[in-house]
Amino acid sequence: MPIPHLSNVQTGPLLALEGRILAAQPQIEHWFRSQWHAHATPFYGSVDLRNSGFKLAPVDMNLFPGGFNNLNADFIPLAVQAATSAVEKVCPEAKSLLLIPENHTRNTYYLQNVAALAHILELAGLKVRLGTLNPEISAPTDLIAADGRAVRLEPIVRRGNRLMLEDGFNPCLILLNNDLSAGIPDLLRNLEQDLLPPLHAGWAVRRKSHHFQAYDRVAAEFSQLISIDPWLINPMFSACGGLDFQSRHGEQQLADTVSELLERIRVQYRAHDIKHEPFVIVKADAGTYGMGVMSVKSPEQVLGLNRKARNKMSVVKEGMEVSEVIVQEGVYTFETVEDAVAEPVVYMMDRSVIGGFYRVHTDRSVDENLNAPGMHFVPLSFETACLPDHQRHPDCPANRFYSYGVISRLALLAGSLELEATDPDADCA
Amino acid sequence: MPIPHLSNVQTGPLLALEGRILAAQPQIEHWFRSQWHAHATPFYGSVDLRNSGFKLAPVDMNLFPGGFNNLNADFIPLAVQAATSAVEKVCPEAKSLLLIPENHTRNTYYLQNVAALAHILELAGLKVRLGTLNPEISAPTDLIAADGRAVRLEPIVRRGNRLMLEDGFNPCLILLNNDLSAGIPDLLRNLEQDLLPPLHAGWAVRRKSHHFQAYDRVAAEFSQLISIDPWLINPMFSACGGLDFQSRHGEQQLADTVSELLERIRVQYRAHDIKHEPFVIVKADAGTYGMGVMSVKSPEQVLGLNRKARNKMSVVKEGMEVSEVIVQEGVYTFETVEDAVAEPVVYMMDRSVIGGFYRVHTDRSVDENLNAPGMHFVPLSFETACLPDHQRHPDCPANRFYSYGVISRLALLAGSLELEATDPDADCA
Repeated sequence: MPIPHLSNVQTGPLLALEGRILAAQPQIEHWFRSQWHAHATPFYGSVDLRNSGFKLAPVDMNLFPGGFNNLNADFIPLAVQAATSAVEKVCPEAKSLLLIPENHTRNTYYLQNVAALAHILELAGLKVRLGTLNPEISAPTDLIAADGRAVRLEPIVRRGNRLMLEDGFNPCLILLNNDLSAGIPDLLRNLEQDLLPPLHAGWAVRRKSHHFQAYDRVAAEFSQLISIDPWLINPMFSACGGLDFQSRHGEQQLADTVSELLERIRVQYRAHDIKHEPFVIVKADAGTYGMGVMSVKSPEQVLGLNRKARNKMSVVKEGMEVSEVIVQEGVYTFETVEDAVAEPVVYMMDRSVIGGFYRVHTDRSVDENLNAPGMHFVPLSFETACLPDHQRHPDCPANRFYSYGVISRLALLAGSLELEATDPDADCA
Repeated sequence: MPIPHLSNVQTGPLLALEGRILAAQPQIEHWFRSQWHAHATPFYGSVDLRNSGFKLAPVDMNLFPGGFNNLNADFIPLAVQAATSAVEKVCPEAKSLLLIPENHTRNTYYLQNVAALAHILELAGLKVRLGTLNPEISAPTDLIAADGRAVRLEPIVRRGNRLMLEDGFNPCLILLNNDLSAGIPDLLRNLEQDLLPPLHAGWAVRRKSHHFQAYDRVAAEFSQLISIDPWLINPMFSACGGLDFQSRHGEQQLADTVSELLERIRVQYRAHDIKHEPFVIVKADAGTYGMGVMSVKSPEQVLGLNRKARNKMSVVKEGMEVSEVIVQEGVYTFETVEDAVAEPVVYMMDRSVIGGFYRVHTDRSVDENLNAPGMHFVPLSFETACLPDHQRHPDCPANRFYSYGVISRLALLAGSLELEATDPDADCA
């Protein structure tokens, strides 16, 4: 697998950060080991990174990653090893697993993701079948994924406190690849079986602002460990609630939040001698799939939004209304893959990086959300297994990918702390 | 990495065995998970396999594997993940590790192995330094490995019950890559630090016959699990003690043991309609490095051995005398790599296969020991990560390598049972 062509416009300060991360590699790995000794690893996760040349930071952390079909096939053994380890922790006796995908059965790429994920779990030694929450599927249904693979979805049956399939398939474990944006179905509550990720990881409960609060703590501790300015790896943010985009309720409050955050970024840019124009990303606090996202360079941009923009911001996946947003420091991406703007997405299972890809968008610019129709994906080279090469320059792909893996694992750890903090009942989790 | 060219003269019955293993993959992986829940995984190990087309069996299991330099570099991420997992089990807080290699400092390929192993451990986040038991090394000494890398060996200092280096390096963990053929040095006894593998894994205590007794149990249970004849994966053997090759004491007893085992093989060959001539391997019960090994087709061959043959059999590594041998069913190897006779060697860490290579010998025949001067090594393709491909023929490399990984992990499990059974004191281990 050739390494995709990467280029970085600005490599000055990030090289220093990467050098710091490489030099501290034994301490970093030791620190992660002790963190994972104290905190339960999420079963899986993916992290969107942005690399501006002066800053390398996670901008989103997904606890129900899709896109396993976009990983480099060379990574599969790593994923299988990590999945085996994850299953061992939860339930070493597990023989079978029910995978619950999203309901959008017409997205053949998503179906390909489901097939790829099921394949990894099968290779880890589980009997895997797919149960759907989609009420339209009332009998076993074969769908065809984008790559031509057949994917069989079956209706879920609840017997007492166990989920099963109609023919009596009685799984030991339930894995959600459905982010519960539409709310937590009663079907999934109070199950006897282990359910991963826990229900409160779903977007019915989860908030980006909780995640980034947890990330603040992780980034602070990590930055102290390797003696860096935490701002270099941490985007600032503010949460803003009580909004109604349709009635324009809370608009001024949002503009004030944007203004205040832009000012804080300006202070940092001045301190770090950065000449770019600050921008912020306004996004639904419980949103996903790149929906409900706006890139903003001045507070005026959120005042007097036209109908189209209001519609875009007010509703996210599954038609949920947006009343809470997170205003996040925008991180430029100065990475390109074959001249198109790109951002790395890193995939993890258990405590391991298992691969990643570049999300590439030929029609978007360096300060925009790339998670939008028209994006495509370029698998990272195998070197993202994220092993550093101390003989080489910090900027070589192996070493860059090591840094990417480290920052992504910080976000994964923040996901773990976030789930601990929001756990409604430790016994349910 | 291209897949080495493999050819198999006889593929009939082994295809059936491979088909069985592939079909039972979820059960097999589940079974391994529960076995590793009940038994501690050895830190690392390598297994010599022989594939005769009708039989696929381990013929040797090394608990102090050398040859990490011969692994395909693509495997390194798997090794790092496995090493991380192994360290987590023993001592999640470990920051530093002292690696104790063999004393033969003039073998530059062995030094390359040490450097490769140290690199894997460093990538797992440990500070690794090399301490030597070699009394000739009284100050830090830089040696040059075959690939030009510098390898620094330092004298070990014992302070109280801790091993350290002269400058105060105080490791959390000690890893032996020295198989203790010469006996257990007092320096290593009753240490505070975790020592891996345990002292009784060394050849001062270990016996091949104990290993294969444990393998008998593992093979029997596994064969029942997937409904196969255990003989297909298990070489028969007998132990024979009280020998003195120089004085010819016990020669007749050895001949009788050979005769009896040849007869048992003949019975199996008849039952399985195999037309080859049975042979046995006579080898030192505590031997390693391919020393003290003889391939024998009739009991007369061990009677009246000439001086050269007696010398060869009587002394193994570190000049230890041989008084106990194991007489093992010979397993033909009908695998060839570029027309030379080859046998696979599979490497494992923790519970995972991390790679392997073919040991190839252009001057040896299908019924001989290949672990001898003149051998060379061909890394297996990445597919030995041993993940099956159910869409393809059982004989394709990915599927063949899955079977190799399964049989090797059976031998690793036997290593674990063997260490449990021979543990002199659970608290020391």
